[in-house]
Amino acid sequence: MSDSTETRTSWLSGDDLEVVRGQVPLVYVEAVPVRVDGAGRVVDVGLLLRVRPDGTISRTVVSGRVLHGELVRDALLRHLEKDLGPVALPRLPQTPAPFTVVEYFPDPSVTGYHDPRHHAVSLAFVVPVDGDCQPSQEALELTWLTPGEAIREDVRSEMTGGHDRLVRLALAHCGCLP
Amino acid sequence: MSDSTETRTSWLSGDDLEVVRGQVPLVYVEAVPVRVDGAGRVVDVGLLLRVRPDGTISRTVVSGRVLHGELVRDALLRHLEKDLGPVALPRLPQTPAPFTVVEYFPDPSVTGYHDPRHHAVSLAFVVPVDGDCQPSQEALELTWLTPGEAIREDVRSEMTGGHDRLVRLALAHCGCLP
Amino acid sequence: MSDSTETRTSWLSGDDLEVVRGQVPLVYVEAVPVRVDGAGRVVDVGLLLRVRPDGTISRTVVSGRVLHGELVRDALLRHLEKDLGPVALPRLPQTPAPFTVVEYFPDPSVTGYHDPRHHAVSLAFVVPVDGDCQPSQEALELTWLTPGEAIREDVRSEMTGGHDRLVRLALAHCGCLP
Amino acid sequence: MSDSTETRTSWLSGDDLEVVRGQVPLVYVEAVPVRVDGAGRVVDVGLLLRVRPDGTISRTVVSGRVLHGELVRDALLRHLEKDLGPVALPRLPQTPAPFTVVEYFPDPSVTGYHDPRHHAVSLAFVVPVDGDCQPSQEALELTWLTPGEAIREDVRSEMTGGHDRLVRLALAHCGCLP
Repeated sequence: MSDSTETRTSWLSGDDLEVVRGQVPLVYVEAVPVRVDGAGRVVDVGLLLRVRPDGTISRTVVSGRVLHGELVRDALLRHLEKDLGPVALPRLPQTPAPFTVVEYFPDPSVTGYHDPRHHAVSLAFVVPVDGDCQPSQEALELTWLTPGEAIREDVRSEMTGGHDRLVRLALAHCGCLP
Repeated sequence: MSDSTETRTSWLSGDDLEVVRGQVPLVYVEAVPVRVDGAGRVVDVGLLLRVRPDGTISRTVVSGRVLHGELVRDALLRHLEKDLGPVALPRLPQTPAPFTVVEYFPDPSVTGYHDPRHHAVSLAFVVPVDGDCQPSQEALELTWLTPGEAIREDVRSEMTGGHDRLVRLALAHCGCLP
Repeated sequence: MSDSTETRTSWLSGDDLEVVRGQVPLVYVEAVPVRVDGAGRVVDVGLLLRVRPDGTISRTVVSGRVLHGELVRDALLRHLEKDLGPVALPRLPQTPAPFTVVEYFPDPSVTGYHDPRHHAVSLAFVVPVDGDCQPSQEALELTWLTPGEAIREDVRSEMTGGHDRLVRLALAHCGCLP
Repeated sequence: MSDSTETRTSWLSGDDLEVVRGQVPLVYVEAVPVRVDGAGRVVDVGLLLRVRPDGTISRTVVSGRVLHGELVRDALLRHLEKDLGPVALPRLPQTPAPFTVVEYFPDPSVTGYHDPRHHAVSLAFVVPVDGDCQPSQEALELTWLTPGEAIREDVRSEMTGGHDRLVRLALAHCGCLP
């Protein structure tokens, strides 16, 4: 998630966000997009190929900040639309409980989940998408991978910040970690 | 769930099922059908009006046995189709974990969940349905109720066997217990 | 949770917290303390009697902010110790996923969960405590109530901000909502 | 789990169990024993070294059948005591919902979870044990492994029937899959 995008939809200028970042953990949401079959089984996992703030290319899941005054569900929908386009038709879960909580720190040794910018507490959800995904200009590509492909060593090496582990936790939650 | 229906799709005659029932707990699935809004929030709960084996009328959720050799997901789909018709378009959850497990006993004092026929261990799921529900001849009617209506005293009194509690657990799981 | 307590353990002066509160949602944790039997069943729920910022008396659960740089588990332990004393012996869950997420807003009409001070996203956990609970001076009393007592109308009327609903969601999660 | 043990505590003779096995899925429980630190984090996973019905040696988790008339919690306690001894002090979860459901079939190609004897639907739980574990004569040894050790290729190769995957799902549920 780039800050330029965030700034357009939030009430914080870049400067204000910098100040807040040093004072409290930020609330994030993350969505692991999946394709499911008629019985709800996960068939494919969607990974975004994108440029991270440090300029490197990486595969990642849908992710972004919850704004002041925004509901978690609305933040999820907003970031899904931003990353997958307006006709992806995401199916948000009924329960407000995430399948896991991921804690990102500037120091990667704390939890293994790493964000150089700040301390963030992220609520992670598995989200089936039925529609046509059209990644925005920020995301270069969306690739659908089978669970077996998503945990391959070469794919995992393209995920940073701990997202490869997050994807495996999502697959495990769905009972389809190979 | 009537035994006549079960018998048609299973490999057990009524007599054999009687014998098995006294020897091991049966595996059941239960689905609380819901209507959701675009952000995944539960808007309505679907309750079936049906005639129970003892002849009384009651409101209930989708429920039935898992057959020998049948996957839990397939049993869920089969019972949803049997009770809601072929075009209900149920959305099964990705996780194989039920939101709760309900244990039915012939003695209602054990858990509060009661089935006069047998000991059953039931995996309960919340299942959004998008399509047109056409209850089968066994279910007389399907009624969509708001969470507030579904927990009203008069509606609860029409549910037996502990199903009123199951509906409240489902609403709580979805964060919308009033 | 009073701000005076928070200020002692955090890196924010009261003024700074005021500024941040208007800019981002704060991360909170909530713990519903329970007594369990040898099979893990919830026998009693612990409710704190305390003075809220507006001077009214209310029953509440253990609650507080996650600080910058603090792990969710450490925040839970800190608030449990602050509210229940140093020998309560809380048993934190193994999973990092809360049983529900509660969103507090200054406007009570948004979610029904209300905090006049700020927008907070709260991760809620059920936490068995085995030891001797000695509420701090802020909490006047800790009362253990059976599930049936905890949902009684008079007890619910002593909980504000939506905590009565949170307690019912916790009981439902544990399968013991009466 | 050997049938001889089961037969002593159930109301089924070996012959009767054979008959029932071919007619309905059996209800099983599985417990992944863990050691936790003061903040509830999983530090070690306990694996039993045991002789399986086919004579091979394998590492496995605590597992067994739910008997007719028996509560799931009581079955969990019974199998934990049988496999870990009477002073293991297992801490059963408050929620009746398993973290996953595993479906065992005689045909290993159906789900990847394999039991040559029957179709079983197994409710899986993570169970912290605080006490001294004394595996019974059936289990030759109990080994505590770190999450990293438990998913090592050589350890996984000693688990059969899909138990290596079950252990990884348990670690993922606890947020500590390496």
